Amino acid sequence: YPVPQLDCLSWRLAVETNNLQNWKLVPKECENYVGHYMLGKLQYRRDCEYVAKQAIEYAKGLKLNRDGKDVWVFDVDDTTLSNLPYYARSDVRFGTIALNDTKFIEWLAEGKLPVIPSILGVYKTLLSLGIKPVIITGAPENFRQSRIANLKKAGYSNWLKLVLRGGNNSKSAVEYKSSKRMELVKAGYRIVGNIGDQWTDLIGEIVGARTFKVPNPMYYVG
Amino acid sequence: YPVPQLDCLSWRLAVETNNLQNWKLVPKECENYVGHYMLGKLQYRRDCEYVAKQAIEYAKGLKLNRDGKDVWVFDVDDTTLSNLPYYARSDVRFGTIALNDTKFIEWLAEGKLPVIPSILGVYKTLLSLGIKPVIITGAPENFRQSRIANLKKAGYSNWLKLVLRGGNNSKSAVEYKSSKRMELVKAGYRIVGNIGDQWTDLIGEIVGARTFKVPNPMYYVG
Repeated sequence: YPVPQLDCLSWRLAVETNNLQNWKLVPKECENYVGHYMLGKLQYRRDCEYVAKQAIEYAKGLKLNRDGKDVWVFDVDDTTLSNLPYYARSDVRFGTIALNDTKFIEWLAEGKLPVIPSILGVYKTLLSLGIKPVIITGAPENFRQSRIANLKKAGYSNWLKLVLRGGNNSKSAVEYKSSKRMELVKAGYRIVGNIGDQWTDLIGEIVGARTFKVPNPMYYVG
Repeated sequence: YPVPQLDCLSWRLAVETNNLQNWKLVPKECENYVGHYMLGKLQYRRDCEYVAKQAIEYAKGLKLNRDGKDVWVFDVDDTTLSNLPYYARSDVRFGTIALNDTKFIEWLAEGKLPVIPSILGVYKTLLSLGIKPVIITGAPENFRQSRIANLKKAGYSNWLKLVLRGGNNSKSAVEYKSSKRMELVKAGYRIVGNIGDQWTDLIGEIVGARTFKVPNPMYYVG
């Protein structure tokens, strides 16, 4: 091929397969590509819908005990709720510009993240099947009220637990989420599924009987 | 979007992220898409090159003991060597037609699988760094000579071990590959990396310090 250059399709595939890890920013030359992918509302939406379809088919095929111990782990940011309005801002540019922590925290605290409709569809299907949602977010405990308000406004309700990060932030995302999943299993729950936009939601200990990766080419949580 | 239809891009993303599991055939409507992806020799090649680049950067960044115990696990089919000439045949059609086992075994036995050049690049870089390649293939033991001949013809040499499947075929691919990796660790080796085209190469026990998924939208090994 003509000029050697970063191929944004290859970059995104590497991100989505966890081949690329600990990356800080979307490459500048991929801003337009990622922007069109996310905001075009066609391919990203379809990709989310396809993940949701797989998750629903899998859940419907499960032989459940119906003893109230079957749970499904959901991540929040860019899994149940979308940060796309924030990442589309001119001072973020789809992750090509480093996040301003203060501004991002303001955005989260406002509790205006829109729903990702196909994931809400998974959530509601699981409830109807008797599988209990457990929501585990990397957001700290002081966001509890705004997260609850935001999740409810987006259509989520009747979760078994909503887990936020306690005071100890020294753990990596993998360690934090693994430890919370381990607590569930120790309490007698069976994690039949686990859905998140970050591989750090889906690897580590007791990942669940099946994991589902929601696309997110905008940032990496390590 | 206009007509609800299977989106082949979403399908391929679901395959590459392990969201879709235990699938038997490439959907008929994706034959052209997969064919162009693979044979266009542009996107597939670039995607392989990008995986290889990540693996090489990771390997070069490792702090190695240089005690001869650092190993890297390679899969064979569609990782080190390519079955693309077989899958491009008119009686296979990029995996949209079920494999004829007899014919496929004949193809493997001929030992004419071409190299995947970017993965050979990873292999040679690892050797130069003092990381020893361990090749673990799902092919049965009676293919040893043809596999050795094929790997050598393709440019691979100086591996530490070439592991083929013994008589017991009751294990799943995950169980088989996990058990072989476990034997390595019990023998004192450290698996610093693991590269394969199937998620069943990369999940299970002792997957290695880092895994790399080579694209393969043509078949699933369960």
